[in-house]
Amino acid sequence: MADLNLEHLKTRLNSDLLEIYNDGPISLVDPINYVLSGKGKRIRPILTFLSANACGGSASDAMPVALAVEILHNFTLIHDDIMDEDNTRHGKPTVHQKWDNGTAILTGDAMLSLALMTLQKCPRNNAEILKVFTNGLLAVCEGQAIDKGFETMEDVTVEEYVHMIDLKTGYLIGMAAELGALSITDNPTHCSALCEYGKLVGRAFQIQDDLLELYSDAKQMGKSLDSDYLLGKKTYPMLRIKENKGDELNMALKTAGDNVDLGKELIRSILEKSGLKYEIELFITQIINDANQLLTKNDLLTDHLENFSALIHNRNK
Amino acid sequence: MADLNLEHLKTRLNSDLLEIYNDGPISLVDPINYVLSGKGKRIRPILTFLSANACGGSASDAMPVALAVEILHNFTLIHDDIMDEDNTRHGKPTVHQKWDNGTAILTGDAMLSLALMTLQKCPRNNAEILKVFTNGLLAVCEGQAIDKGFETMEDVTVEEYVHMIDLKTGYLIGMAAELGALSITDNPTHCSALCEYGKLVGRAFQIQDDLLELYSDAKQMGKSLDSDYLLGKKTYPMLRIKENKGDELNMALKTAGDNVDLGKELIRSILEKSGLKYEIELFITQIINDANQLLTKNDLLTDHLENFSALIHNRNK
Repeated sequence: MADLNLEHLKTRLNSDLLEIYNDGPISLVDPINYVLSGKGKRIRPILTFLSANACGGSASDAMPVALAVEILHNFTLIHDDIMDEDNTRHGKPTVHQKWDNGTAILTGDAMLSLALMTLQKCPRNNAEILKVFTNGLLAVCEGQAIDKGFETMEDVTVEEYVHMIDLKTGYLIGMAAELGALSITDNPTHCSALCEYGKLVGRAFQIQDDLLELYSDAKQMGKSLDSDYLLGKKTYPMLRIKENKGDELNMALKTAGDNVDLGKELIRSILEKSGLKYEIELFITQIINDANQLLTKNDLLTDHLENFSALIHNRNK
Repeated sequence: MADLNLEHLKTRLNSDLLEIYNDGPISLVDPINYVLSGKGKRIRPILTFLSANACGGSASDAMPVALAVEILHNFTLIHDDIMDEDNTRHGKPTVHQKWDNGTAILTGDAMLSLALMTLQKCPRNNAEILKVFTNGLLAVCEGQAIDKGFETMEDVTVEEYVHMIDLKTGYLIGMAAELGALSITDNPTHCSALCEYGKLVGRAFQIQDDLLELYSDAKQMGKSLDSDYLLGKKTYPMLRIKENKGDELNMALKTAGDNVDLGKELIRSILEKSGLKYEIELFITQIINDANQLLTKNDLLTDHLENFSALIHNRNK
């Protein structure tokens, strides 16, 4: 196993991100650098590095794809924030809020071309890497389209919801892992095991996120979640409650209309008393275990990846 | 020179465009097919075919890149129409008008991934083709960013304007020609001559467009041009008039504020009496001649490409 200094890689990633685009119209240079200097957790490029490391390569060889993955992720955030009318992200105003919708659309589009340019710097497996990246882009769009569709649907099943987050969140995290592998190896078993690992971790991550949303305040999450919440957004715990405790949920939502904090408290209380919170936590644990086992079976589970799984599993913001 | 049946190619292109995306969320399938069934002139993919033909290849080998070029072009229209608040395109409501901004943003994003997927079907020069395509995407974004910036600038020079349209319009038409060449040949002289030819034709096309806007009504142009016009949009003829007949232009714009048709008539009258209309037409002719000469020098000027240049030069809508 090659050496791995994650702190060093993250520092280099952050500084490389700020070198991506400095020579263009100021109305693109400014918002692009504003976004890329954001305080994201960089979990996707970190997974890319870990994946390259698990394949026996030097993580720094995965730097071009790690950068492309992080740029693509930020592109999706900018466009999603316009659609969802979210005004805060990582504690800062979103692009469309600080500038305007037009600037935010264009910033995202330009970032997509920058991600593609960065991807082309990868010395290995270029055609396959591009294919995976392009599929990832379409999956994220489809996930977002399905999610937007949920807003006007009366009934969404838990299965439909999981399918949506697999596309909207899981696919890109799976892609982050797969691209890390592809930048090191041609081994299709290793590449696809790491891809599936990432997809499962992404699923756990999103369900965890949904649960944390009910237990955190806006400040802790660094985004304006109350808007999501007030819209009655379909999330995993909400759909599970609706399935099992529909009447109690309706009362809680009615309360939330007048008093968000009280409504949220009621929802938490339903979750806990019904045992659903425990069930959901167990479900997340099970997904993480399945993900780790996929790697164990293929001799890919390093201490680093195990720590990564645990980090996702145990995060509290 | 290989055979060339443009009508047949255009028919195949149009039917292939409708096969691109039918298996996804309906909220993406519908607007994507709505856009791709639009009545555009398809001048970019036609140039791609002509370019492949001029390089001695079979135009149908350029079908994947021709499709990708047309999809990319339509992606830019969808996002530009949101930014410019244009509600009609090719005589139909724009996507954001028929659906909503979110759907239009997402439709564009998904189409970009479909363009990339289509591009990957080209059997030749894949890495170079992707590079050219990605550079084209960034250029179009930069051109649009500069164009938006013009809206709030007091003074824009004719040179700045030409630089902007070279990015926003010329680059993509140059790309259409270059990708046609790349799908047939490795000859860098031929590829870059065709690219430069396309860029010049694109420049002529846009200046022609600017002039036609002043001489056509909204119905003829198939888009809601009066909105552009009322915004006092900087276009080539307007900047030339401002440079030479600033006072008369101000009076005409004042009149246009109350009566668009009368204002437009005054602007046309300034253009004609000052001889500027003749100068602009001469400038367009010169660009087209330069474009043709580039090809003649490299033994690439076919009858088909000469007809194409003439078609751009002589169009009246």
